[in-house]
Amino acid sequence: MDKVFFTPGPTQLYPEVKTFINQALDDNILSLNHRSKEFIEIFSSTCDSLRRLLNIPSDFHIFFLSSATECMDRIIQNVVDKNSFHFVNGAFAERFYKTAVELNKNAVKAEVNYGEGFKFDEIKINNDPELIAFTQNETSTGVALNADDIYRIKEQFPDSIVAVDIVTSAPFVNLDYIKIDSAFFSVQKGFGMPAGLGVLIVNDKCIEKAKSLNERNISIGSYHNFLALHENALKFQNTETPNVLGIYLLGKVCDALIGKGIENIRKETEAKSKLIYDFLDEHKKLKPFVKDKTIRSHTIINIEAGDKQAEIKKQLAGKGILVGSGYGKFKDTQIRIANFPMHTIDDVRRIIEVLSDYK
Amino acid sequence: MDKVFFTPGPTQLYPEVKTFINQALDDNILSLNHRSKEFIEIFSSTCDSLRRLLNIPSDFHIFFLSSATECMDRIIQNVVDKNSFHFVNGAFAERFYKTAVELNKNAVKAEVNYGEGFKFDEIKINNDPELIAFTQNETSTGVALNADDIYRIKEQFPDSIVAVDIVTSAPFVNLDYIKIDSAFFSVQKGFGMPAGLGVLIVNDKCIEKAKSLNERNISIGSYHNFLALHENALKFQNTETPNVLGIYLLGKVCDALIGKGIENIRKETEAKSKLIYDFLDEHKKLKPFVKDKTIRSHTIINIEAGDKQAEIKKQLAGKGILVGSGYGKFKDTQIRIANFPMHTIDDVRRIIEVLSDYK
Repeated sequence: MDKVFFTPGPTQLYPEVKTFINQALDDNILSLNHRSKEFIEIFSSTCDSLRRLLNIPSDFHIFFLSSATECMDRIIQNVVDKNSFHFVNGAFAERFYKTAVELNKNAVKAEVNYGEGFKFDEIKINNDPELIAFTQNETSTGVALNADDIYRIKEQFPDSIVAVDIVTSAPFVNLDYIKIDSAFFSVQKGFGMPAGLGVLIVNDKCIEKAKSLNERNISIGSYHNFLALHENALKFQNTETPNVLGIYLLGKVCDALIGKGIENIRKETEAKSKLIYDFLDEHKKLKPFVKDKTIRSHTIINIEAGDKQAEIKKQLAGKGILVGSGYGKFKDTQIRIANFPMHTIDDVRRIIEVLSDYK
Repeated sequence: MDKVFFTPGPTQLYPEVKTFINQALDDNILSLNHRSKEFIEIFSSTCDSLRRLLNIPSDFHIFFLSSATECMDRIIQNVVDKNSFHFVNGAFAERFYKTAVELNKNAVKAEVNYGEGFKFDEIKINNDPELIAFTQNETSTGVALNADDIYRIKEQFPDSIVAVDIVTSAPFVNLDYIKIDSAFFSVQKGFGMPAGLGVLIVNDKCIEKAKSLNERNISIGSYHNFLALHENALKFQNTETPNVLGIYLLGKVCDALIGKGIENIRKETEAKSKLIYDFLDEHKKLKPFVKDKTIRSHTIINIEAGDKQAEIKKQLAGKGILVGSGYGKFKDTQIRIANFPMHTIDDVRRIIEVLSDYK
């Protein structure tokens, strides 16, 4: 039986990934020197495709790291001397905050319960933060922040660098990059690729900040500091031998998504999430974890399933549908369903059919 | 025409890699959750295979990072508070040294010219180094240090942590791990795999050192600090979603190498390098860059080709054989030939045949 992975990631591969990988093998892409003309063309073409797909302005730089977790690490290291501020409403926002703590920064957080958003007007940011960190789509809870709220904070703190975790919302989320300074994601989520590549998007303000820290002899790290990444990215290269296959596949998947039309993909994603949320809102026992409809993620849907969780997961698995468990303390009571471009509306209907049996 | 990559890395893929990748795709390995039982089995099995292949003692820990360059970064960050000492005889040893400088350590180096080894008896190590760093096989020059020299330094400085770069000598190099503290490599060299995975091997002394730095509030980094890596490795996991395909493939390639017998592979490697060096020693114009026969690398062979370099490379390429250029200032005058397990003795003979035309 064919399996379909609706897990938050790693997840179902984008349908053409197998073909793309075999093309890479046949074309000897994986044996290419990482300073060669051929590799530079791949790097450059992937950047072009990603810019087109996500509408990334030309004055933003694209860096290839190894994971979104590394992106957090490098952002803190390169733009924070002393103070950062973090909006924390789940495990991944907490990871970003903890990264700052572990790197000995004065990190302050505004924290709300899992499943909730923020009352932005009531939150005081008064530690003069060099960085304000948002987790736009919290993979642990299924809460999505509205981009407008993020832009408003940036307007209030124009001197701070605003970095946005879009790990499980890209490529669905439609960000206006000029209203933020940095965003990052990993590819084993909405791009349906093998894990092992993190993508970090930064503007010149981030590079300038790294430069200024470096000039003041504050360590910004070594091979993956922003100055080294930037210097190499200008030549369409990495400092180290990067995940060449990942960079190649990302370009191919972006091209496939462009072919389908990002607007179509966004509409389809909303249609699929509406099917699930509408069903859950009517359901007597299964409930969406996120009560506030204005902050429900379209791409990560957390369902409160209580003591039926294991049974439902098993039932779905019996039909070849693999879904995620809840995160942390919700591990045994919640189900998480990813809703990415490679998940079809027919498969979503099959999930709902199974869930309908629980009355 | 089929191509054979004799480049130092990325290089020719191990013959079964294509089959292994397609097996991973068919078995949905790339969609597995990185905390799942199935993933844990893959991680654990890869560690077992690597331990068997390289004879790594059970009290050494295996960490999966993203590149050898990251390994350098993390070693410095986790075992050096103030002082490190570096044996520098090429670009990669210099990279290790520079990493320490960039992380604001007091790094001291003993430096010799490219193509040379060290007169170990004459070198004074007197900065009380917490780390002594060796590049056992210098990929830029084709110089291989003898393991016994490394062990002797460790005997003289038992309190220092000795870390050994075996990026282009693994799995050929036969190290006695209990006589050092750490070694690392990346997989796109002697293992013939796609790039994007670095393997770091450390003993408890390294973990203890990281713990002591951490307790003294000296930053050891965040998600890839040794304590987090160690805690997760004990559960056969990474802190982040790692390069799952890389970890899976490494296990499969190790099993294949074990099947061939590591002793056979080592003998075959020596036989192939002997063919090339013997030929070069007799040749009137083409010369081995490394004059001292006792420190010639078996796995990276640098040839001085002078003004014939471009022509020879082209000639070889015409027969489907891709070799590397020299490194840095030797870019246009040297040829680098990798001699890894997937390179056959017949292909080596084909290289020699082409080189024989240059009289």
